[in-house]
Amino acid sequence: MPVRRLVLDVDKTVGEPDLIDLALVIEAVSGVQAVNIAVTEIDIETVGTNVTVEGDAIDVEALNRAIERTGAVVHSVDEVVAGAYTLENTPRSR
Amino acid sequence: MPVRRLVLDVDKTVGEPDLIDLALVIEAVSGVQAVNIAVTEIDIETVGTNVTVEGDAIDVEALNRAIERTGAVVHSVDEVVAGAYTLENTPRSR
Amino acid sequence: MPVRRLVLDVDKTVGEPDLIDLALVIEAVSGVQAVNIAVTEIDIETVGTNVTVEGDAIDVEALNRAIERTGAVVHSVDEVVAGAYTLENTPRSR
Amino acid sequence: MPVRRLVLDVDKTVGEPDLIDLALVIEAVSGVQAVNIAVTEIDIETVGTNVTVEGDAIDVEALNRAIERTGAVVHSVDEVVAGAYTLENTPRSR
Amino acid sequence: MPVRRLVLDVDKTVGEPDLIDLALVIEAVSGVQAVNIAVTEIDIETVGTNVTVEGDAIDVEALNRAIERTGAVVHSVDEVVAGAYTLENTPRSR
Amino acid sequence: MPVRRLVLDVDKTVGEPDLIDLALVIEAVSGVQAVNIAVTEIDIETVGTNVTVEGDAIDVEALNRAIERTGAVVHSVDEVVAGAYTLENTPRSR
Amino acid sequence: MPVRRLVLDVDKTVGEPDLIDLALVIEAVSGVQAVNIAVTEIDIETVGTNVTVEGDAIDVEALNRAIERTGAVVHSVDEVVAGAYTLENTPRSR
Repeated sequence: MPVRRLVLDVDKTVGEPDLIDLALVIEAVSGVQAVNIAVTEIDIETVGTNVTVEGDAIDVEALNRAIERTGAVVHSVDEVVAGAYTLENTPRSR
Repeated sequence: MPVRRLVLDVDKTVGEPDLIDLALVIEAVSGVQAVNIAVTEIDIETVGTNVTVEGDAIDVEALNRAIERTGAVVHSVDEVVAGAYTLENTPRSR
Repeated sequence: MPVRRLVLDVDKTVGEPDLIDLALVIEAVSGVQAVNIAVTEIDIETVGTNVTVEGDAIDVEALNRAIERTGAVVHSVDEVVAGAYTLENTPRSR
Repeated sequence: MPVRRLVLDVDKTVGEPDLIDLALVIEAVSGVQAVNIAVTEIDIETVGTNVTVEGDAIDVEALNRAIERTGAVVHSVDEVVAGAYTLENTPRSR
Repeated sequence: MPVRRLVLDVDKTVGEPDLIDLALVIEAVSGVQAVNIAVTEIDIETVGTNVTVEGDAIDVEALNRAIERTGAVVHSVDEVVAGAYTLENTPRSR
Repeated sequence: MPVRRLVLDVDKTVGEPDLIDLALVIEAVSGVQAVNIAVTEIDIETVGTNVTVEGDAIDVEALNRAIERTGAVVHSVDEVVAGAYTLENTPRSR
Repeated sequence: MPVRRLVLDVDKTVGEPDLIDLALVIEAVSGVQAVNIAVTEIDIETVGTNVTVEGDAIDVEALNRAIERTGAVVHSVDEVVAGAYTLENTPRSR
């Protein structure tokens, strides 16, 4: 039943929040064990990131609230892993 | 005899079901141990996903019913693994 | 002497057999320990698959008969592994 | 001193020999422990394969004779490994 | 809570600082255990680098100050990892 | 101090030496533990190969003499590894 | 504090120094444990190489002097690793 991994498409302005602060805010959410924020795009005013979050039972609503409270915007959830272990995606062969 | 892995091509509308809910519904199916839902396409009204499900003996009919009941649509089964262990696909060399 | 792995190019109609049934039929063949069926092509009437079968001593004739009995067609054998262990293909360097 | 791996470019007609038979004939050669036959090309009349053979001390002449006796043709030897362990090819960096 | 990895886009002039000196300055920052500086671009006057820093609890402000004091310029933070272990980025599947 | 790996660009005529013989001649050189000969090109009269040799302390001069004595030609040394362990090449990031 | 890995862009003439000699000279430098020299380009008069050096505490100045004394030229330092362990480069995701 626990959500073990979430991959989120998160945008922020260049200035706010600071990436380090965003990482620490995410890491403090209940059920989160580790976070990786990778910058995928830098534009004049915004920074696009790919946020990977892992934990034993991530509190997804608290995670979303925590991210939005920093001023960053969650555009989409791009991967969800739930269950007894962290299962990787098996890409299609066609 | 047990089905150990299924990879499904599943579409949903942008609004319903929520990806987290879909993952938890799948994870609650008899015989399922873990699920990975990876978003492969976002259109104006629909979201395309690749759903990987693993378990010791997945109840395939219950899985299909559970997914359809959320409002999501199973377009195709793209991989099936059965037997004593989880065997990977060996791609052709030609 | 045992055949340890076979990779088969198998076609079926969209309707018959069901992929799960095909996997379970293959898995029940003498000497088969695990099967992976990966869909490589979906056309209007047919589904192309890559079937990987592993075991300690696969009964190849029984395997072919079992597949054909479901209505699926074996187009070709694309890889055979025999011997004391499961040896991978070493691709040419030229 | 032992030859530990051979990779051979082997062609056969579509009909003869059967790939399974070819694998079992190779596997029965003195010093052979395992064989992988991967189909690399299917033409109207011929099938091209990449044959990987491993063992502690492969009897190369007996291997060639055994393959030719089935009606298949060895076009070239594409890799030879000899020595105390199975050394992989290190591709050039230029 | 600790920041475990930072990836920085750092530019320097061809002459100053020396790459070895830059590595040793970064390595001396509180909480840093190891640093990798990879040159990604060499222009007439400037050298572009990708700086990976790992540690149990990197002092990010001290790190930035230490780099700027050498005369090098931090253009952007491209990856941040925080939490109980070093989590890798999971790239999107779309 | 020992040379642990050499990668050589070696050409031979189609007829002479036989690849197996070349492998066994190399393997018999003082300090050689294992050899991999991979064919990279087959022309009308010549065969191009990539020869990887490993050992605890390869006698490089004896190796060159042994190869030339078979009639094969060493065109270039493409990789040398020396020291306490077998270090892989780290490719540039630019 | 120790420099654990250096990757250098080193050119030499076709004739001098011999690649084996260059490897042994580098390997004899204080703090060096292993060296890999990979040839990246062969021109009419010069040979371009990628030199990877690892050790517990490489004496960088002695290394540069040793290479230059052989007649080879160090064009640039392309990677530096320092610290408690050998950290790999994490490439950018943008």
